[in-house]
Amino acid sequence: MKKINHVISEIKPLDEKAMVEAKMRQDDLTKPQGSLGQLESLSVQVAGIKGNPRPRIAHKVIFTLAGDHGVTHEGVSAYPSEVTPQMVYNFLRGGAGINVLARLVGARVVVADLGVASPLEHHAELKEKKVAMGTQSMAKGPAMSREEAIRAVEVGMELVEDELPKGLDILGTGDMGIGNTTSSSAITAAITAADVTAVTGRGTGIDDEGWEKKVKIIRKALKINRPDPKDAIDVLSKVGGFEIGGIAGVILAGAKNRIPVVIDGFISGAAALLAVSLSPQVKPYLIASHQSAEKGHKVQLDYLGLKPLLNLDLRLGEGTGAALGIFLVEAALKILDEMATFAEAGVSEKK
Amino acid sequence: MKKINHVISEIKPLDEKAMVEAKMRQDDLTKPQGSLGQLESLSVQVAGIKGNPRPRIAHKVIFTLAGDHGVTHEGVSAYPSEVTPQMVYNFLRGGAGINVLARLVGARVVVADLGVASPLEHHAELKEKKVAMGTQSMAKGPAMSREEAIRAVEVGMELVEDELPKGLDILGTGDMGIGNTTSSSAITAAITAADVTAVTGRGTGIDDEGWEKKVKIIRKALKINRPDPKDAIDVLSKVGGFEIGGIAGVILAGAKNRIPVVIDGFISGAAALLAVSLSPQVKPYLIASHQSAEKGHKVQLDYLGLKPLLNLDLRLGEGTGAALGIFLVEAALKILDEMATFAEAGVSEKK
Repeated sequence: MKKINHVISEIKPLDEKAMVEAKMRQDDLTKPQGSLGQLESLSVQVAGIKGNPRPRIAHKVIFTLAGDHGVTHEGVSAYPSEVTPQMVYNFLRGGAGINVLARLVGARVVVADLGVASPLEHHAELKEKKVAMGTQSMAKGPAMSREEAIRAVEVGMELVEDELPKGLDILGTGDMGIGNTTSSSAITAAITAADVTAVTGRGTGIDDEGWEKKVKIIRKALKINRPDPKDAIDVLSKVGGFEIGGIAGVILAGAKNRIPVVIDGFISGAAALLAVSLSPQVKPYLIASHQSAEKGHKVQLDYLGLKPLLNLDLRLGEGTGAALGIFLVEAALKILDEMATFAEAGVSEKK
Repeated sequence: MKKINHVISEIKPLDEKAMVEAKMRQDDLTKPQGSLGQLESLSVQVAGIKGNPRPRIAHKVIFTLAGDHGVTHEGVSAYPSEVTPQMVYNFLRGGAGINVLARLVGARVVVADLGVASPLEHHAELKEKKVAMGTQSMAKGPAMSREEAIRAVEVGMELVEDELPKGLDILGTGDMGIGNTTSSSAITAAITAADVTAVTGRGTGIDDEGWEKKVKIIRKALKINRPDPKDAIDVLSKVGGFEIGGIAGVILAGAKNRIPVVIDGFISGAAALLAVSLSPQVKPYLIASHQSAEKGHKVQLDYLGLKPLLNLDLRLGEGTGAALGIFLVEAALKILDEMATFAEAGVSEKK
């Protein structure tokens, strides 16, 4: 917990001066003030995060963290657990959705094994950070020990630290883990106090009967484990997942290093709830890329006070929404940096 | 009208076979079916437009058409008319919002003068297609003659034809014209039969008093001109603008040439209403990039049955939303083209 506490202690507020300067420049560009809506506010936010009134981003990284969930033995998912390692290999070969979108936006993908329930073959591009061979079933007891929960968050932080020397101007979060919408629903219910039915969706595609079973399992997990909503590590250990804890660590380390954190969908949202619970100072560093089709995501975004940039009914995860969000942040920063001012362009101002 | 009728006669339905093949491939890619939401449906739509189950786009063009509006003499805009030519020069120098976003997405910007109310200096990159020196005030009579309206639409078609030899795989529409939200509100009210107050917004930024005046002017224009809602050329000539007619021509020529047409905000939406009124066959070729902060835009999109990809409170025009929309179409097509299938990646399918 020492590392986590240290990172949290170093998360600072946004730079107000840089934000004021960025806002002044936005208002001086050749367009009616405010006419680029969220692109304008995004650019000001990132100026504050980076402490630079005219920031640029070159190095973009998506962190895609994988882990397995013991709760899949209860039959909560439409896909078998073996898909988790299969998809990790797909990421490493460049054939998954996140690879395609990351290439398009010019981002590196960091693939990490936080807790896949089988040994993975070595690969130069795979970050081997396994905390354990998958979680235990939260329907029978805690998903992991408190020590493992702490370790998962710290491993996420290490992933960010490893990328800093290569350049890291903006990061996106992503996940892979069969069963992880079940865990994310439990985390969301525990932290926001929303009813389980309001935060439980169809995941990769279960039917009505499957959904009712999933709700029952989540209720059972919350009842037998009694996670303490004020203690994020307790919530993570009782009903979380290794990749979710890892993403919380990525978020915290991003904020500590003044890096804009573009969060993906429902799983990343659960991790953001944990991160903000550990340190409310994280919140202004967060950018919500999209609103997922997974129903609990809106509950998370409302709780966090975040407005999503996109609403495309995505529900894949992996960081796919975050990749698109990174593109929009880049668009916002290019507007701020490259547009001509009224004076430069000789354009008349408002009457 | 001969040219317009010819183009309309050549607009064909989408290619169902290509759409079925694209959908089958989407369902075979390594993700739960439907989990990429609108990106999946977009890719299928473009497959149908292009008659190719795995289309790629290389040549992207934004058509940004400029024109002035006599109605500005009634004091309906927050900016003076001289801003129209000033912004055209800004486009040609690459300093405007559309230039920044087009560069980011790798699109050419075609800048055309359809009816700016002052002579413009020659420039290699400026398409000189002036129909007249701005419209007449629609508050006093028709904005233009029927012949001029037809000419504006045909000129828009010519712009598309001129670009075909250079390569044109996807197009976006854009506008510049002080006073053109007033004209677009009148067109929208005439065609959709919505109340003027429901389709009249703040444009570049008028106050409450300005808004009431704008509503009064639009009502007056509709009353004295009595545009025939079943005759799009009549609507355009009575209460339209040269750039709006030109955009309608761009849309029609795009559909004729099986090019996906990404429409921008409120002005392009008014042009889309005219185009669809001239030929309902155009509709499946349309992609709505975003929902504008300009209130009448939602009325247009609902009338056209289009779901916007983005909702960023943009209201700049120029084609800025369309540029972002083109990026999302490219993302959709890359997913379809580049992702691995379950068989290729050795990933287990749904239980």
